[in-house]
Amino acid sequence: MSTAPIAPPVPVPAERSRLTAARRLAESARTVPGLAEFEQAVQETRERVLTITETVPLDRLSGWHFDDDTGFIAHDSGRFFSVEGLQVETQSPAAAWGQPIINQPETGILGFLAKEIDGVLHFLMQLKAEPGNRNGLQVSPTVQATRSNYTGIHGGLQVPYLEYFQDPARRRVIADVRQSEQGSRFLRKRNRNMVVETTEPVEALEGFVWLTLGQLHRLMAVEDLVNMSTRSILACLPLGDGVPATGDRGFGTALERSLALGGPEVHPLVDALSWITEARTLSGMRARTVSLDALADWEFTGGRIRHRAERHFEVIGVRVEAVGREVGQWCQPMIRAQAPELAAILVTRVHGVLHVLMQLRAEPGLTDTAELAPTVQCTPDTCAQLPPEQRPLFFDLVQNARPADIRFDTVLSDEGGRFYHTGSRHLVVETEWLPEPPQFRWLTLAQLGELTQHSHYLNMQARSVLACLRSLFPGGDR
Amino acid sequence: MSTAPIAPPVPVPAERSRLTAARRLAESARTVPGLAEFEQAVQETRERVLTITETVPLDRLSGWHFDDDTGFIAHDSGRFFSVEGLQVETQSPAAAWGQPIINQPETGILGFLAKEIDGVLHFLMQLKAEPGNRNGLQVSPTVQATRSNYTGIHGGLQVPYLEYFQDPARRRVIADVRQSEQGSRFLRKRNRNMVVETTEPVEALEGFVWLTLGQLHRLMAVEDLVNMSTRSILACLPLGDGVPATGDRGFGTALERSLALGGPEVHPLVDALSWITEARTLSGMRARTVSLDALADWEFTGGRIRHRAERHFEVIGVRVEAVGREVGQWCQPMIRAQAPELAAILVTRVHGVLHVLMQLRAEPGLTDTAELAPTVQCTPDTCAQLPPEQRPLFFDLVQNARPADIRFDTVLSDEGGRFYHTGSRHLVVETEWLPEPPQFRWLTLAQLGELTQHSHYLNMQARSVLACLRSLFPGGDR
Repeated sequence: MSTAPIAPPVPVPAERSRLTAARRLAESARTVPGLAEFEQAVQETRERVLTITETVPLDRLSGWHFDDDTGFIAHDSGRFFSVEGLQVETQSPAAAWGQPIINQPETGILGFLAKEIDGVLHFLMQLKAEPGNRNGLQVSPTVQATRSNYTGIHGGLQVPYLEYFQDPARRRVIADVRQSEQGSRFLRKRNRNMVVETTEPVEALEGFVWLTLGQLHRLMAVEDLVNMSTRSILACLPLGDGVPATGDRGFGTALERSLALGGPEVHPLVDALSWITEARTLSGMRARTVSLDALADWEFTGGRIRHRAERHFEVIGVRVEAVGREVGQWCQPMIRAQAPELAAILVTRVHGVLHVLMQLRAEPGLTDTAELAPTVQCTPDTCAQLPPEQRPLFFDLVQNARPADIRFDTVLSDEGGRFYHTGSRHLVVETEWLPEPPQFRWLTLAQLGELTQHSHYLNMQARSVLACLRSLFPGGDR
Repeated sequence: MSTAPIAPPVPVPAERSRLTAARRLAESARTVPGLAEFEQAVQETRERVLTITETVPLDRLSGWHFDDDTGFIAHDSGRFFSVEGLQVETQSPAAAWGQPIINQPETGILGFLAKEIDGVLHFLMQLKAEPGNRNGLQVSPTVQATRSNYTGIHGGLQVPYLEYFQDPARRRVIADVRQSEQGSRFLRKRNRNMVVETTEPVEALEGFVWLTLGQLHRLMAVEDLVNMSTRSILACLPLGDGVPATGDRGFGTALERSLALGGPEVHPLVDALSWITEARTLSGMRARTVSLDALADWEFTGGRIRHRAERHFEVIGVRVEAVGREVGQWCQPMIRAQAPELAAILVTRVHGVLHVLMQLRAEPGLTDTAELAPTVQCTPDTCAQLPPEQRPLFFDLVQNARPADIRFDTVLSDEGGRFYHTGSRHLVVETEWLPEPPQFRWLTLAQLGELTQHSHYLNMQARSVLACLRSLFPGGDR
């Protein structure tokens, strides 16, 4: 390193950098060309890519074994991930349970490559068939790579476009933050959510397609189409330029006002942060890994691990044959939910600014005890059987919402690399102002956007359903 | 909970809340009454409070024992903290070492109680004698309480003013964030750094004194006076109103410009965050606790645990007798450094805006692998013996700085509750612009202030020396 003084760069006002980024994204969101090219790419890819997944008993899963020392299910190479037992205790309310959990101690990359085309930001999306997808192809990030992927442990092909995410000289960063995966399924798992822009010429390979943010927003309303990683990244984009298109009191305008940097908010951010600090300091959740055999409420039966009362989920084995993916054939454990889950948010307009009712929720696999979650996050089939006073707060309100109050309602898949035919209903319901129970706060999208710049604030379900809400950002012809 | 709709609060622009908070703090910083009352309070407290600390062999430490099962030093009650062995491995550069480390798995409260007096924010500071202080009293937060303290495990008196930090209804939050302790001495230790304001009448008990931020800033220049917890909290205050007092190109003006919200910066925040995300993702530091006996380079000799080459620090035992503190007599292990440490930052004016050269540094006890550290953080006695090419970057530059370039230079103590007669030289050196090595970035005080709103970004040494830099904020008569 030379320490010879050279001229420093000229500082740019922070305000200007942020507004510029937000405006470019807002412009991309307002640009909604037709989807004919996209449909055609889907057709072509569907003919080229084929994934066949069949369930096989966990004890006959090639390449995997029950480890006698640990009591975990592990890959013979010691890499990829393991399925472990987790024993959890909470203090208030006092409760204890055991469950299987996935341990994958590495940080993968989930990334969008962005590029200006005709002056508008486009994102290079991959049409990808994951083994757990019930419908084949889903709209996935440009790159979706575990460390195993990109260091070649799979023995598969090189991950296309990975160089833009690995080489700082070839990118301009729009977002880059490690975010949690589901804290009730993954043990301290985080992925690096990245959006990088290039000015180099980039060719869309087969199975890749350029989309504007507006097109992506349109596709969010299609069942099981936009995959979980894509939704997670979308929630990390600094959308919102603080310039509502119109002055009316409509939903879209309230949404734009909610995204405005420095805009009006019911709680100053410092109060919201203090509420989070307090909950995390007092959180009494403890978790430790144990042998899968030690989980009293779970049993290994019929080649899978399931809850004795058939609740929650089961761990199954699958054999995958793929054409057009990195490796032709492999086996792996997967998680299959017993019933669809619900990720629902209540939203309200406060003096013309949309606020979202967020819940602070502890989950045993989260790195920092508790993160913001949707207003209601549960398995409706299970909750509906509980007496009303034991159901999650606001459960009945969102389940029984009048159609006129529903702003978004689509079933979207969990990550098809680990979850088998498993999805969640994503629901956005508008309501009058409601008082906040202690574990809830009304926050603006700008505040939530500021928090998603950092790790450990919004859980996966929150990011996913907020991406749905943000997809209602006024597009070209709405 | 009633779900009957009531009127929502009127949202307040985020910009306005932030500016108001920053302006009130800036006003407090500019208000510097004489320190006669403070001096008198110190005199009176010194007569009333007496702490006698004597070293005793670790194996004759009443209430503590070597645990045969774990190989740790633990309290007989199982509470407070333990001293454990830590085995650390890093990948680049490949290195491995063992060391003792303090494990105290609970989050304490370090808090300032604030109140407006004659229209200016004052902070209620405690004049407190900790057993490790070499000079008796230090200026400490209103409340400095471990969970053991405030749940009464000590069997001591109630912690005064704690109610303002525990009861949300009695406070307005100015700052509230969990921050790390030294990552080379504490295992994943975090304390809650709080500043809360009350409008209730508050009487200053004996040993407490109201100070403006300007007075606190003055006192920072006094050797070993402002304690570590106070410095940590000062770094979390949202100082800086974006309105430099003068238009000149002086150091104070450059400092004020650096604190301005939304002001000019060499790196957009998103780039700084990406740099941190990348380093954390690639960090190869692993640490696991082991028996103290298993540490090859450390030995138990003469009643203390020390490095065989007498480097780093030693773990000693002390017996404390105190008058005017919670408990009259107790014993505990403490850390004693072999030599003073150095926490030095380089600063430079870029087009009239002060920037600080921060280092991203992994430490084995940090919760999230790496945090921002001072430009140079080391033990000078050890580093000076290394050949130049092995010394920390910028070490010679800060050690040999011309007096005219030194903006701050004071030895300040480490926390006297755990560290025995241990201090660090806090040094701020102004330089020309220098190119950034990969692990270094020039950042503004506004950016660092934004990051201190969140956990896991600035390490203790960084917060401490930044508090020193911020103490140069132009006061009344400068």
